[in-house]
Amino acid sequence: MKVNGVEVEETFAEAFDIKIARVLITAYDYDWAYVAANEATGFGTSVIMCPAEAGIEKKALPSETPDGRPGYYIQICHMSKKGLEQQLLARLGQCVLTAPTTAVFNGLPDAEEKFDTGNKLRFFADGFEKQVDVGGRKMWAIPMMEGDFLIENDIGYVNGIAGGNFFIMGETQPSALAAAKAAVQAIADVEGAITPFPGGIVASGSKVGANKYKFLNATTNEKFAPSIRGQVPDTQVPEGVKAIYEIVINGISIEAVKEATRVGIEAATKIPGVVKITAGNYGGKLGKHLIHLNELF
Amino acid sequence: MKVNGVEVEETFAEAFDIKIARVLITAYDYDWAYVAANEATGFGTSVIMCPAEAGIEKKALPSETPDGRPGYYIQICHMSKKGLEQQLLARLGQCVLTAPTTAVFNGLPDAEEKFDTGNKLRFFADGFEKQVDVGGRKMWAIPMMEGDFLIENDIGYVNGIAGGNFFIMGETQPSALAAAKAAVQAIADVEGAITPFPGGIVASGSKVGANKYKFLNATTNEKFAPSIRGQVPDTQVPEGVKAIYEIVINGISIEAVKEATRVGIEAATKIPGVVKITAGNYGGKLGKHLIHLNELF
Amino acid sequence: MKVNGVEVEETFAEAFDIKIARVLITAYDYDWAYVAANEATGFGTSVIMCPAEAGIEKKALPSETPDGRPGYYIQICHMSKKGLEQQLLARLGQCVLTAPTTAVFNGLPDAEEKFDTGNKLRFFADGFEKQVDVGGRKMWAIPMMEGDFLIENDIGYVNGIAGGNFFIMGETQPSALAAAKAAVQAIADVEGAITPFPGGIVASGSKVGANKYKFLNATTNEKFAPSIRGQVPDTQVPEGVKAIYEIVINGISIEAVKEATRVGIEAATKIPGVVKITAGNYGGKLGKHLIHLNELF
Amino acid sequence: MKVNGVEVEETFAEAFDIKIARVLITAYDYDWAYVAANEATGFGTSVIMCPAEAGIEKKALPSETPDGRPGYYIQICHMSKKGLEQQLLARLGQCVLTAPTTAVFNGLPDAEEKFDTGNKLRFFADGFEKQVDVGGRKMWAIPMMEGDFLIENDIGYVNGIAGGNFFIMGETQPSALAAAKAAVQAIADVEGAITPFPGGIVASGSKVGANKYKFLNATTNEKFAPSIRGQVPDTQVPEGVKAIYEIVINGISIEAVKEATRVGIEAATKIPGVVKITAGNYGGKLGKHLIHLNELF
Repeated sequence: MKVNGVEVEETFAEAFDIKIARVLITAYDYDWAYVAANEATGFGTSVIMCPAEAGIEKKALPSETPDGRPGYYIQICHMSKKGLEQQLLARLGQCVLTAPTTAVFNGLPDAEEKFDTGNKLRFFADGFEKQVDVGGRKMWAIPMMEGDFLIENDIGYVNGIAGGNFFIMGETQPSALAAAKAAVQAIADVEGAITPFPGGIVASGSKVGANKYKFLNATTNEKFAPSIRGQVPDTQVPEGVKAIYEIVINGISIEAVKEATRVGIEAATKIPGVVKITAGNYGGKLGKHLIHLNELF
Repeated sequence: MKVNGVEVEETFAEAFDIKIARVLITAYDYDWAYVAANEATGFGTSVIMCPAEAGIEKKALPSETPDGRPGYYIQICHMSKKGLEQQLLARLGQCVLTAPTTAVFNGLPDAEEKFDTGNKLRFFADGFEKQVDVGGRKMWAIPMMEGDFLIENDIGYVNGIAGGNFFIMGETQPSALAAAKAAVQAIADVEGAITPFPGGIVASGSKVGANKYKFLNATTNEKFAPSIRGQVPDTQVPEGVKAIYEIVINGISIEAVKEATRVGIEAATKIPGVVKITAGNYGGKLGKHLIHLNELF
Repeated sequence: MKVNGVEVEETFAEAFDIKIARVLITAYDYDWAYVAANEATGFGTSVIMCPAEAGIEKKALPSETPDGRPGYYIQICHMSKKGLEQQLLARLGQCVLTAPTTAVFNGLPDAEEKFDTGNKLRFFADGFEKQVDVGGRKMWAIPMMEGDFLIENDIGYVNGIAGGNFFIMGETQPSALAAAKAAVQAIADVEGAITPFPGGIVASGSKVGANKYKFLNATTNEKFAPSIRGQVPDTQVPEGVKAIYEIVINGISIEAVKEATRVGIEAATKIPGVVKITAGNYGGKLGKHLIHLNELF
Repeated sequence: MKVNGVEVEETFAEAFDIKIARVLITAYDYDWAYVAANEATGFGTSVIMCPAEAGIEKKALPSETPDGRPGYYIQICHMSKKGLEQQLLARLGQCVLTAPTTAVFNGLPDAEEKFDTGNKLRFFADGFEKQVDVGGRKMWAIPMMEGDFLIENDIGYVNGIAGGNFFIMGETQPSALAAAKAAVQAIADVEGAITPFPGGIVASGSKVGANKYKFLNATTNEKFAPSIRGQVPDTQVPEGVKAIYEIVINGISIEAVKEATRVGIEAATKIPGVVKITAGNYGGKLGKHLIHLNELF
């Protein structure tokens, strides 16, 4: 199949289950909301060695938020319910409560499952907390140095998807990279999806396990490593490809991940020097969700 | 004492010991270096509940770096040597190795103590790694999807300082906040110092321990909380002060922390509506380093 | 009337007629589209001494653009048809044709009036230009150093509105400024409206003509100058107001200007330290459009 | 000659004389200083059809500025003294005086020639202006809505250089563009030099005059247009080159332009997919200054 003239391999991305909490952070303006959202989602690329996977999902217009201020939705993702609760507590407590002018709202008010993260963080007020209502939400006001910090009592979470992905192969490294950047920006407008890696991009796609260093859970995917193409008999790097970037997508639903994959590929294939799109799958070792690229178009 | 017409209280900031590793990240341009530096230093405001304290220290000009590319120095801070090594491994492995076009160098080549973080991360190459030399540095080249990632064998660390601080008191919240932002930008040019909180600013200064909720190690510093000024008999919020922001400073030396404090106060006191500067100290419960504000000017 | 607890004076903004061309600029990604949009709309705050009024209106999603790439809508405004055509030619020819990866589309395809700016700029190709079709638009491909630059043959323009405005009065300068910034960001999502001044904000609101220096067409509006409040008998600066910022709004329709005024005031009045909103009017000397603030809520 | 393994042609850039005024803009923080600097230097790529050439030169640290605030140096360039004075007056009056929290200082205090731009702009105060001293500079305080705007009485200018340049040829368009961006960022740290085009980059390098459309002063440089390589017998596009970007450099001295050219080429040649560097010259039709690329290394 071709998209914008570029070959999209008839293969599939293999994705896995993860638990995802979604938080709405508002502030004076988008810049201050971003400062908090960015700190709270840092060190959050992969559960392999990060304490969580996390990312900024999208802007929230003032007309969409309970306090009428601009903001960002973020997602925090973890394999276990317990781990997710701990990460929510730590990331909201240390990176948003501490940030200038922010308030925190439940980003999934309709979710069946939730944590009482706001109720736990209110203890920081050491007895001075007060319950307040903002747009029908049950909130806590926590007196601090900047004034009162407001956080909703409950934060919802769902069973979501991690590891949606596609690979961008380029004639030159800057071509593959410009395409990856365009893909990430297109995905940034998709409701419910995040790209948790740095700048949304993975430079170092990995395989499950190792051939030589068996003590590692994940090592370089040598079949997709251009610089050792000549040393890997079953290389999957096409001739003339100098660099490959992977876009990894998490989402609160399989539909969100699929839509993100589709718009990402549409955007990437518009950049000159992109020669092929494919996806990563691991024989079912990674997860049970299969996203067939050719069914997206 | 007055600085730029604003009262600076004759008090001191109480700071404590911490171990700090310093890493130089280079890339195609400052934007891509920033993407990696930012991801690697996220979720890193306070060791109270973050896995490390971390921040971007300063730009590195192409003429200053071993590979002649632009970059950023970052600092990773931890109370223990073991914890610091684990954080370096995880943050560089998950947030910089994975980021587009980056290379990693020892940011403290003269430090006596070091971790062989590069030597450990090379195992990701699963046998395809190669030792190379860049500007006299012993590096590992790790073949990946984007090409080869280069990282220095050793990363140096020192006994540094955490918790340097000052408080900015404003007539209005935006005045205190504009002053805090100006202070953080001024500190960004100080060699060896970082401001690890979101946007460099703390909205929620805390005290050690709690009065009511004794199960917490840190709770709101109610004496500096303007919204409950009337409820706290020994409040230290001056009349007319509506908001206070704290700037927390870590540094690789006490001199760096002092210089950062000085330029930060100079910058903050130039913003209209700032009425007083003071600092946080906790009767020696927090740390042994005392930075007297009036000795800085 | 009060909005978010802040007094909004029962007065009106006086706006005037202007001709507005609207251009859609697309590129690899939002960053490159912004580079071109920003250069093309610079030196464009006020027709008093700028060659045009100009601003970036809003983002265009890839799904909304003829070439499926991300972009920005910009507006170029001039009092005369001839002047507008000259400005379009110069700004698109010097600031967008010259910018990396851009294409230019008519941002008002349904407008009755239009300039054949693309047809004129194609001569830059010195005979190598080719007519092409993109999404049903008649375009010219101009071979250049980066490859082919594409521009639509016609650019539409309408009779629009300039000088819509409101004033934000603050207890401190940073309060008024933070409110102005929040207002500008809220207006950035309004279809059809721009805020042409630096960062969308006017620090120097003026009156028509002069009292002392009669050779000037516009001078400081001394009745709204806080620092000389004591010297101006008929000052309109309320007691306790230290700074005032004006938001000036242009738009392709009176409805767009009104909606921008409304969301701007909503956003500004959420910032602490804002004490009053009013608007600028000049006894009909400036223009015929009156926007009554109290009718907006 | 090779730089970083890339061929640098033994040719020269042809540059011409221009008059350059240099202005220092300070503000609350770098962000607000940038807002003013950016507006004041917009619509300023080429004197062919822009009212001036203009650009942001570099950051000014708080420790370097007369008022101890952060800022940016900008340059405004014009072929004539009279035109330069008019542009200074219009750009400072409309784009900096109107911008939040700014002050304006002479950026060339040692220049022999100067305009009394501050003295002329003070009339905006309509009689309320006051002369003040800041760090030994003779300034005017102009009461406005935000408070007092301060501007120095005199702004210096020199006989500078325009049109310094080099061309970056890439295997793919994104390679050439990534190299151009890296070059521009490297030049941003060079004292005295600017890159006036959008994002510092020219996508549309031109020749003097025209072959077919003789009514134009400048048309596409078809010999360097990759998409018509097959149609231009004396093409200078090497085989395999898909895109070329030009970096145009202005500076207050020939040394600044040369240093900018050198660091720009050093940076560009580090990006993968760059195959050749050359420069633009026009048989002396453009200017008298010749910068030989091979003498820079």
